[in-house]
Formats: sequence, C-alpha cells, structure tokens
Amino acid sequence: MAYTAPTRDQLFILNEVLGLERYSNLPGFAEASPDLVAQILEAGGTFAAEVLAPIDRTGDREGCSFKDGEVTTPTGWKEAYAQFVEAGWPALSSDPEYGGQGMPAVVSFAVSECTAAASAAFSMYPGLSHGAYSALHANGSDAQKATYLPKLVSGEWTGTMNLTEPQCGTDLGLIRTKAVPQADGSYRISGQKIWISAGEHDFAPNIIHLVLARIEGAPAGVKGISLFVVPKFLANENGGLGARNGAVCAGLEEKMGIHGNATAVMVYEDAQGWLVGAENAGLKAMFVMMNEARLGTGLQGLAIGSAAYQAAAEFARERLQGRSLSGPKNPEGPADPIIVHPDVRRMLMESRAFIEGGRAFVLWTALQADLQKSPDPATAQKARDFMALLTPVLKAYLTDRGFHVASQAMQVHGGSGYTEHFPVSQHLRDARITMIYEGANGVQALDLVGRKLAANGGRAVMSFFAEVDALVAEIEADPALAVYADGLRGAKAQLQEATFWLMQNGLQNPENAGAASTDYLHLFGLTALAQMWALMAKAAQGRISSGAGDPFYDAKLLTGRYYMERVLPETATHLARLKTGAATMMAMPAEAF
Amino acid sequence: MAYTAPTRDQLFILNEVLGLERYSNLPGFAEASPDLVAQILEAGGTFAAEVLAPIDRTGDREGCSFKDGEVTTPTGWKEAYAQFVEAGWPALSSDPEYGGQGMPAVVSFAVSECTAAASAAFSMYPGLSHGAYSALHANGSDAQKATYLPKLVSGEWTGTMNLTEPQCGTDLGLIRTKAVPQADGSYRISGQKIWISAGEHDFAPNIIHLVLARIEGAPAGVKGISLFVVPKFLANENGGLGARNGAVCAGLEEKMGIHGNATAVMVYEDAQGWLVGAENAGLKAMFVMMNEARLGTGLQGLAIGSAAYQAAAEFARERLQGRSLSGPKNPEGPADPIIVHPDVRRMLMESRAFIEGGRAFVLWTALQADLQKSPDPATAQKARDFMALLTPVLKAYLTDRGFHVASQAMQVHGGSGYTEHFPVSQHLRDARITMIYEGANGVQALDLVGRKLAANGGRAVMSFFAEVDALVAEIEADPALAVYADGLRGAKAQLQEATFWLMQNGLQNPENAGAASTDYLHLFGLTALAQMWALMAKAAQGRISSGAGDPFYDAKLLTGRYYMERVLPETATHLARLKTGAATMMAMPAEAF
Repeated sequence: MAYTAPTRDQLFILNEVLGLERYSNLPGFAEASPDLVAQILEAGGTFAAEVLAPIDRTGDREGCSFKDGEVTTPTGWKEAYAQFVEAGWPALSSDPEYGGQGMPAVVSFAVSECTAAASAAFSMYPGLSHGAYSALHANGSDAQKATYLPKLVSGEWTGTMNLTEPQCGTDLGLIRTKAVPQADGSYRISGQKIWISAGEHDFAPNIIHLVLARIEGAPAGVKGISLFVVPKFLANENGGLGARNGAVCAGLEEKMGIHGNATAVMVYEDAQGWLVGAENAGLKAMFVMMNEARLGTGLQGLAIGSAAYQAAAEFARERLQGRSLSGPKNPEGPADPIIVHPDVRRMLMESRAFIEGGRAFVLWTALQADLQKSPDPATAQKARDFMALLTPVLKAYLTDRGFHVASQAMQVHGGSGYTEHFPVSQHLRDARITMIYEGANGVQALDLVGRKLAANGGRAVMSFFAEVDALVAEIEADPALAVYADGLRGAKAQLQEATFWLMQNGLQNPENAGAASTDYLHLFGLTALAQMWALMAKAAQGRISSGAGDPFYDAKLLTGRYYMERVLPETATHLARLKTGAATMMAMPAEAF
Repeated sequence: MAYTAPTRDQLFILNEVLGLERYSNLPGFAEASPDLVAQILEAGGTFAAEVLAPIDRTGDREGCSFKDGEVTTPTGWKEAYAQFVEAGWPALSSDPEYGGQGMPAVVSFAVSECTAAASAAFSMYPGLSHGAYSALHANGSDAQKATYLPKLVSGEWTGTMNLTEPQCGTDLGLIRTKAVPQADGSYRISGQKIWISAGEHDFAPNIIHLVLARIEGAPAGVKGISLFVVPKFLANENGGLGARNGAVCAGLEEKMGIHGNATAVMVYEDAQGWLVGAENAGLKAMFVMMNEARLGTGLQGLAIGSAAYQAAAEFARERLQGRSLSGPKNPEGPADPIIVHPDVRRMLMESRAFIEGGRAFVLWTALQADLQKSPDPATAQKARDFMALLTPVLKAYLTDRGFHVASQAMQVHGGSGYTEHFPVSQHLRDARITMIYEGANGVQALDLVGRKLAANGGRAVMSFFAEVDALVAEIEADPALAVYADGLRGAKAQLQEATFWLMQNGLQNPENAGAASTDYLHLFGLTALAQMWALMAKAAQGRISSGAGDPFYDAKLLTGRYYMERVLPETATHLARLKTGAATMMAMPAEAF
C-alpha cells in the first residue's frame, strides 16, 4: 500500500494548536525544539512510508507461520524490524538513564500514528515492547531494570503482556496460572496464556514476557494476582543470553486480520520468573502497561482509519463513473471522477473530520501524559485526572469510529474494495480487533461510568467541563468561530445533562449506568472531538486573520464545520437513548434471546 | 455453524401481522393455506439448518478453485445443491406453466431468509438463477421461455447476470461489450465482464448468462444497451446440451468473504447470444432482475445479521465472565454468564429489534410484490408504488444494519469473535458485500431521492404516509400501544419534514438531494421498521389481551419497546444532518482530499 505521513497536520497540532514551546519546563521538552520535532516527524513519516507500508500487505497475505515452537514472520518483516532498531525508534521517548532519547510522549505518539497507519500488525511488536518497558520502569526492582530496560529500549529484545487465559478474559479474577516461590527468590510459573500478541517471533533473540499469575496460597479473585517477568531466555550476568526458559509458544491463533502479528498461545511449564512489584499487587502494576496499551490501541484505530481514508480519497479522485449532478466536471473523459458525487464526499468528509479531530485528541491526551510530570502539582494533578478520565474514551471512541471509517473507505471503493486487490479489506479486517483487545469497548465504557466519572467526587469531569467552558468563552465572540463555539457548547451541555442523569440514576440502580455506558462514552468522544475542532478552528482562523494564504487552513475550517454540522448532531441520539434506562433490556429473560 | 430457523416468528408475521388468509383472491394464495405455508416454512427451515448450515464454514475456508476455465465449488456444495434441486426449492414461487409451484412471493422470501442465513454464499447460486428466470419470464420470447424457463425452474440449469466491466460499475452507460447481428437472428457477443456471481461452477451442466451488451451502431450511453441470453452450452432441440458456447470463465476474484460463491471474470468471444426484449431496451429488461436482486440482497443482509445474532446470543448465555451489577446470578459458578451485563444486552436487543423488524419489513414488501397482481387496479397500483419506493430502502437499510449487527455479534464474542474458530468473522466478512453489490447503498439512496420520491408527483410517498397515519390512528387510543404509536408518529413527522426539505432544496440544487440521500434513506428505514413494530405490537397485544399466555408475545412487545426507546431516536440525527445541505462538503477542492 501507499502511505503518506500526515506530517504537516501533526506539526500544525503540535506547534499551532497545542503550542509545545510553552512547555519547556517539562522533562524532554527543552530538547524538543520545533526544528528537532519536525525532523523527527519527517524521519518517522518517511520510515513508515518507505519501510513499513511496503511490507504491510505481505504480512496480511503470508501471515506468521508456526513450527515446533518457532514462529517465522512474513517475508521482509525481520529486516524491517532490524531497520527500525537501527534507526533508534524504540528509544524515542524512553528514559535516557537506560539509553532512551527522552523525547516527550506527545512526539512519540505522533510517530506511532505513522507506523501504525503504515502497518498496524508490525507496529504492535514495538508497541508491546514499549508497554513492557513502561511496566518494568514503573514497578521493577533496580536489578530488573538494569537487566531488561536497556535491551527493551534498544529494541534488541522485545516484550509482551500475558493476561488472558481460556476461561479468563475481561474477568482477570479467574486467572489460574500459578507461581511457586523458590529458595532463590524466583518463582516457577505454570499455566497457559492465550492471545499473546507478539508472543513469539524471529525479530529478536529474546522475548521478555510480563505474566499475571497467582502465587500459591494467594487470595481468590483479583486481589491474589501478581506480576512476573518471565524471559524466553534467562539473562546471564554480562547481559547475554543464558538458558532457555520454560516459556514456549504452542501455536498461533487464526484471525480475521493483523495476520502479520503472531498471536500466540503461550505455555509456561515451571518457567523461571521474578516478581515485579509487590505480591498480589500485579493488577495495579500491569495497569501501567494496560493504560499505555489502551492509548496505543485508540491510536491504532485512528491510524488504520487514516490509511483507509487515504486509499479511498485516491480512489475517489481517479475512478471515473457517472456525471456530477451540477454538470460534467471532466467533459473530455468518459465520466467524472466519483469525488464529484455528494454522497462520496459525505463519506470522505465524515472520515476526515474524524481522523483530524481524533489525531488532535490523541496528541492532546499524549500531552497530558507529559504534563503529569509537571513540577506544578496542580497542573500535574489535572493532567492525571484527564488521562484517567479520557483513556477509556480515547480507546473506545477512536476504535469504534476508526473501524467505521475503514468500512466507509471500502464503500467508496465499491466492488473493488471487497476484493483483496485493494488495501481496504485489510484495513477493515485489521481495524476490527482494536474495538476488542486491550479491554473490549463495552468494558471501557463501564470503566468510564463506573470508575472514572465518580473518582475524587467527579473532579476530573468537572475539570473537563471547565476547560470546555473556558474555550467556548474564548472563541464565541468571534463571528468566524461561532459555528465551532455553538457546536461545542451544545455538545457539552448534553454531556453534562447525561452526567447528571448518570449520577442520579446510576447510583440508584447500577444497571442504569451499565445500560447508559456506551452511549455516554460516545457522547463524550463526540464532545472531546468538538473541543479539538474548536481548538483547531481557533488556530486556523488566527492564521487566516493574520494573512496566511495557505489552503491548508481553509480546508481545516471546512472540515471542522462539517464536523459541527454533520457529525455532532449524533449527540442528541445518545442522550435520548441513555436516558431511557435499563428497564426494557433487563426485563427480557435470558432464555428468550 | 448451528442455525435455527425463525419459523415461529415468520408464521407470526405471515398469519397474525399480515393476515395472509385475507388475500385468497391473489394468484397462488388460495392454494397457500396456513397449514401448507407452515409445512413449507418448516421444511425450508429444516433444509437450511441441516443441509446448508453445515457446509457454510467449509465454503469460507476452502473457497472455490479455478483451473483451465473450470470451477470447483467447496467440498459438499455440489451435493447440497443436488439436494436443493431434488427437494424442489428452485420451483417454489415460479410459474406453474414452466413447472413452478406458484407459491406467493411472501412465502418464498420467508424460505429464502433461512437459506441465506444458513449459507449466504450458497444461496446466491439459486438466487441468481431465480433472477435470470424472472428477467426471461418478463421479457423473453415464447421460444426463449420454452427453452430456458423449465430448466431454471427445476434448478437443472442455473443463471447469472452480467453487467459490470472493468471500466463500468454503477455507470452502465460505459458498457463496451459488443453484439454483432448474425444472419440467423442471433448475435455474436464479445467482451469482458467482471464480478459475475455464480458465473461458473460444478453444480449444473449449463449456465444461462444474461448479458448486457451494445449492438454495433447502437447509440452511446444507457440508451444503446441491449439484453442477451448467452448460454454456456447451446440448447439443442430436445432440450439437451448442444455445442459449447464462447462464454468462458477466465478466473475468480479473491474477496474478503462469500468465498463459497464463485465471483467470475467472464470472457465472451464471439459467443452466440439472443436478444431478450427489444433492441436498446436492455437496461429496462435487466431491471426486472436487478430489482429482484436488490430485494434479495436486502434480505441477505438481514439474514446474515440474524445468523450472527444467534451465535452471539448463544455465546452470551454460555460465556462466564464477571458478575451482574445487581448481585451474582450464577453464585455456584466461577462467574455469571455475560448476558447479565446491560451493555451485552444492549447489543443483543439492538440486533434483535433490527432483525425482527427487518424480517417483517421484508415480508411486508414481498406481500406488495404479490399484491401487484391484484385484480383490483387501485390495490395493484398502490403495491407497485410501495415496491418501487421501498426497494432501495430495503436494500440499503437492511444491509447497512445487517453488517452492523454482524459486527455487534463479534463484539459480544470479545476476542473469540476475532478468531476464525467462531462463525462471526465469516458473518461479518460475508455481510460486508451486501452493502456494495446490486447497487452500492449510496446509489440506492440516490435512486430513492432522485427518482422514486418524485415519481408520479410523489404519489408513493404520500400513500406511505397515509398508511402510517391510518395505523397510528388505529392504535393510539390503546394505552398499551401508546409507546409504539408515539414512536411511529414522531418518526413519520420527521420523515415528512425531511421529504418537504428535499422537495424545496433538492429541486433548487440537486447536490442538496445527493448530500441528503443516505441520511434520508436511513430515516426512511427507521420509519418503516417503526411501522412494522407498531403492526407487530398491535398483533401481539391483541393476543395478550385475549388471554394468550405465550412469552413469545411478551418478548415481542419488549423488543418493540426497545426499538422505540433506543433505536428510533436516531431519526433526529438524520434529520438534523440532512438539513445542513451540500454547501460545506462541496466547498472542499477535490485535490484537498
């Protein structure tokens, strides 16, 4: 597939919307000059377009193959990974203490969008490594950090996350994998884990598995789960490979998409592992990785959608079929390009309004990740609140809509899109998993309404409302920005109404909260993207007012207007729906389904 | 996969909602006694469940294979087709003059739902044969009818429809395939056709291709297109096979789904063909087949959705994960079945509200097909109006939502659903084509707003509104039916407002109509299903009021209530969206996409 990195749009968001230069007091930001950031995004975009995009289709067609515990990745993938490591990409935002480059999260998320768009299945390998890095960085002992972090930061070794078992997906309290303490302080881990992305491959000589297991005699349920680091090969004292550990891939899952990523069944048989963090505090430690993975998954949904949109826009400009309703636009040709048809534009504009708004939302949220490290406690707390509140929104909303956009891109292609000669079938199939893994979207919605909303007396959501109100107040006086201010104000009012409804009715009957959760999350996502569009419109209008004659800004305002006119009206449906409560759906006897 | 035919629900619709016994004045209805119809549906459902459902997965995994112009269908498919023919299913609603059983369309659509749900890819073979039968029955000469119809009715031969060429999909005016008149009155056909479903296979010794082509010297565009019948083997005088014709399969398309159906590239090289109907009137003649195929495609979207829903409901009743928000429902087990979770029920109820409403909509529309043959001219005209108006709605709305339901079914399955061990990946992949073929859904929407609405001064849509108003008036006084009456009244008011908006703004600027078309179609689909739910609620409430203690009726009322509460609020979004017009989307320069 062909892929063009959205470098210009990313730089617009980073520099003109978020104003990164304002944050030089944060770690890594002083070094991240606008010039350097631009260079990094250029290089990342080029790498994605030139190295990853060309191997994506091969990954889909060949998939990974499994034989005797070993996995062979598709043709060219191992070499691409070597180039990825060679270029230093795994180190981009990692801690300089372990060899990282210490760039802000907001910069590395921008690069990750490009790699995920160019090849979603490929980008999962480094994505999981980075998650393992983060979990160890936050929870590991000094010795564990010294052993594993430099290798993960360099990309020399990769990492995974082992949660799911056949009887246990969302409900981690059902985990059965056992850990038996040994005299030397290590543990022997035994059990079966399934759906382990990047669980086995030929990219790297060693794979560091982070495994949730239950120490013998631990309490039942989630309170008895501990986190272990279980390397494929034990690390010897000089950092090289020691003995082969009892962590073995027993097979690969056959899936609808992301064929290039090895989804492994992992069998642990008396594998040697080491406790990460405290006993029975595994879930909390793993949550560092899970939260990062959730943001990464939301980004992946957006990124796949953006790649599909690019393919659709190209097809729509080139495919000749029918004539414009307002008279021929290509009178010399046999027909007009289908981009003249309003219904084709509807699909493209809807996709684009989502992608550009979602891109801003991802980078805005990544900036919160950086702001968590602010020396100012109030700023840091607010950023932590936003991160906690918005992680489930970002994960679920961007993946639900990312899949929809991939499906729209197929629709723009017509019958061609359904054949495997065009890239959109792969995009659609790849995108579908993002709604499921790292916590199915319904679980994200329940996390939002059941946990995140009520935390600290609703402090986070109140802070979000205040942020939105301030933005509306800032822009509403400018007639050129009225459409954006009005849209955002209306969406926020509905979100607030839904929030109050939840407070009253969800406390009274938790099933009302469950029944409302997905609609509430979508209402939140719509409002968050309206906020992003208001911010972007403000920045673009500012440039236009000061004389910038760049059509980029005109397109930005038009796309934002489309969002306000044609996407945002969905909020009313979500509000009306959620206010009907749980009674009807819960009244149906289970056997009647 | 396992499949249970919805015989009870279909009989409820046919007998209690539509009241088939009222129509004994129509052809075939006198013979279609309630007992016989019940027997037919039982037999059709059993055939679908026992013969077709078991081969569906094999079809997906093996696909069709191509070698030297010959196609081999998946293991067991040829045998299943032989059983299908042996049981007489191809003849069900065909003309008794050619060996058909003459059953009403409404009965054969009910059977077709089951076969399409059990195996969408399989059911396309007889579906296309029936389309070819209909086109020849309506347009063929007596000799053509005598030659081909008995073979198509018996299923001994099959049929296809050849429209698309590489440069020509929606825009049939671009057809290049040529027809050269011969001295004997036949034509020599040359050209390439692509995406020909059931174009080549091993089910039957002969395949009757209906081919759109351009007679040498014909006018350019759609006015120069003629329809030809081009058999794979020429028929000899005693009805057997004569010489092999120059209609050859040159390869199969690789597709995302419906792998069991052979999507052929057909090459015609001086193939002998015969004109069907008048010269240059091919498009009109083919439209008989296309309209039938559109209804069949809508039905297919619904049917695949229903199969996916069945799998999801079963999974949700059996998968144990988490606990109910209102306290354990399976305290002895390690966790509760996931059907206790409101968000899982939301997905199942939404799916079910669509499927049962859509099923009624299909059967109601099929009844209009029968009513077209009414001896009463006013009844026949009204039925023709409804058919014309609602065919694009049925095709596009049921396929858009059928795909969505298949995707919801995957979501209910969580990670399992994304693996190919469960049937929902196939359902999702199979369902996706229904939004595209037989006229992409955007083309249906344009047909609705650009042609069907305005025909005869808007007579059809006014007649639809009157029908809805009468139903509302009939039920609104009953407090038990108020929720259904209110929902339907509100949806119809919004549809009417949208219709008036279109009349004013679409005439003024056709791009406003194009920009509004898909939202208008969905608003129409939502209203049509609300009408169906009001009819079903009336029937169910009538039974309950007269003392029927059958939980079937309670479930029907609950599902209908869910539809009114949680599905129908979407209408407001569509209305708000379409009223924003075309200006924003058309303002974006093509090169900015």
